[in-house]
Amino acid sequence: METLSTNQAHGGVQGVYRHASAATGTEMTFSVFVPPHAQGARLPVVWYLSGLTCTHANVTEKGEFRRACAELGLIFVAPDTSPRGDGVADDPEGSYDFGLGAGFYVDATQPPFAAHYRMWSYITEELPALVAARFPADLSRQSIMGHSMGGHGALTIGLTFPDRFRAVSAFAPIVAPARVPWGEKALAGYLGEDRSVWRRHDAVALIEDGARLPDLLVDQGDADPFLEEQLRTPLLEDACRAAGQKATIRMQPGYDHSYYFISTFMDEHLRWHGDRLRGA
Amino acid sequence: METLSTNQAHGGVQGVYRHASAATGTEMTFSVFVPPHAQGARLPVVWYLSGLTCTHANVTEKGEFRRACAELGLIFVAPDTSPRGDGVADDPEGSYDFGLGAGFYVDATQPPFAAHYRMWSYITEELPALVAARFPADLSRQSIMGHSMGGHGALTIGLTFPDRFRAVSAFAPIVAPARVPWGEKALAGYLGEDRSVWRRHDAVALIEDGARLPDLLVDQGDADPFLEEQLRTPLLEDACRAAGQKATIRMQPGYDHSYYFISTFMDEHLRWHGDRLRGA
Repeated sequence: METLSTNQAHGGVQGVYRHASAATGTEMTFSVFVPPHAQGARLPVVWYLSGLTCTHANVTEKGEFRRACAELGLIFVAPDTSPRGDGVADDPEGSYDFGLGAGFYVDATQPPFAAHYRMWSYITEELPALVAARFPADLSRQSIMGHSMGGHGALTIGLTFPDRFRAVSAFAPIVAPARVPWGEKALAGYLGEDRSVWRRHDAVALIEDGARLPDLLVDQGDADPFLEEQLRTPLLEDACRAAGQKATIRMQPGYDHSYYFISTFMDEHLRWHGDRLRGA
Repeated sequence: METLSTNQAHGGVQGVYRHASAATGTEMTFSVFVPPHAQGARLPVVWYLSGLTCTHANVTEKGEFRRACAELGLIFVAPDTSPRGDGVADDPEGSYDFGLGAGFYVDATQPPFAAHYRMWSYITEELPALVAARFPADLSRQSIMGHSMGGHGALTIGLTFPDRFRAVSAFAPIVAPARVPWGEKALAGYLGEDRSVWRRHDAVALIEDGARLPDLLVDQGDADPFLEEQLRTPLLEDACRAAGQKATIRMQPGYDHSYYFISTFMDEHLRWHGDRLRGA
């Protein structure tokens, strides 16, 4: 693991790191904020999954998470959103919503994407092991959050590993990718046309199929231009209600899809995570 | 004035605007955050002047100021750092520390820069009038802060208009441009070789020459790579001590010159400003 940069911030250290990933077969870059802590302490870990077009850098620069993480003693990890580099296939049309910057947190099975697009394995297996080995992380206390495509990732990973994550939250998540254009394109492209396979990567379908979370917090701006066609928050509300899934899903008047929205509610999400990560 | 973007954030509105500036003879872009407020209210204004290479965007995206401004009811204005556009002269060598992105908050007298590089007039006259006309601003309650070259701007403007600004603070300011390479290059290039003219644009010289502030807050990272050669904080400490200028000048261990440093101390600076902007 190579250190690309470290900057002291809010009493802790914001770092950016690169490593050769076995999962993706590429170099992967990610950021980690380690808050001030007593020597020898092991700290809870919050995973933040980013949205379409993003790298680790967007939330690292604009997310306004360090103040609360420093106060609450939380490590904050922000991975990239896809493999990158020579030989990594991209959308032939070069669109923003598939291929580079759009890994959708799945292990692709379809050529040519199966070779490198293995973000599910990367996020759920390889990167946690690396973080545990190289940072003062206590992996018995983890939580996960994300934005948009990364909200989809946080929800599906959280629903798949309910014993691993004590808290799951999302900003403007894609709640039902199997039923919206962004998701249909990505899931077909990475996983093929058999829609039954897609259900494991669709939060609403997972809940319908019996998966559960201890609790869930979602914020969604009602001025988000992607709300109606791509995000479809009401599908998650309906699924939670039908399944008896405990959830707080809030429409925030006037907020859009940007980091101005995310940074507004980041503090509250981190405190909600912090409440659930406290204790052994 | 043209609105380039508005985003709701922390209950207020972060906007980016463009206008044809009479002072610079160019289009100028700036950002304004207006916090939530009662209809008809007029709010205090905090000016933030940015450093070399920056535009309004750096602090707008990375400054982490909106939360405190929303809580304290402060308008936050972030101008650009130089004129830009067709016909605006740049450093012939294309360096980052002179010309575009490096206006140094002076009115240039030297060709070819005198034509457009009139950032002093722009910041002290034209933009305040525009902000007063277009935003719910109370110009009887203003304060000013800045970073690096913008810290220099905040100090020199604050020292020149002690009755206008109730609070002046800076992150890693260039305190004595007449005595450091960045400043010598810029002041000679914009103002000519007569160093006596430079003293009006050098905070330490202004204090030596009798200018005073009500109070001053400065934070400086001791891991800042520009500290020894370009920023030279001890010269400001000495000048304040010799002049009996009230000042809190803090060395912050481990902090560098980046927005990770600025965003760490932004909240505290804004609360310090807020204390001084309260009341009629």
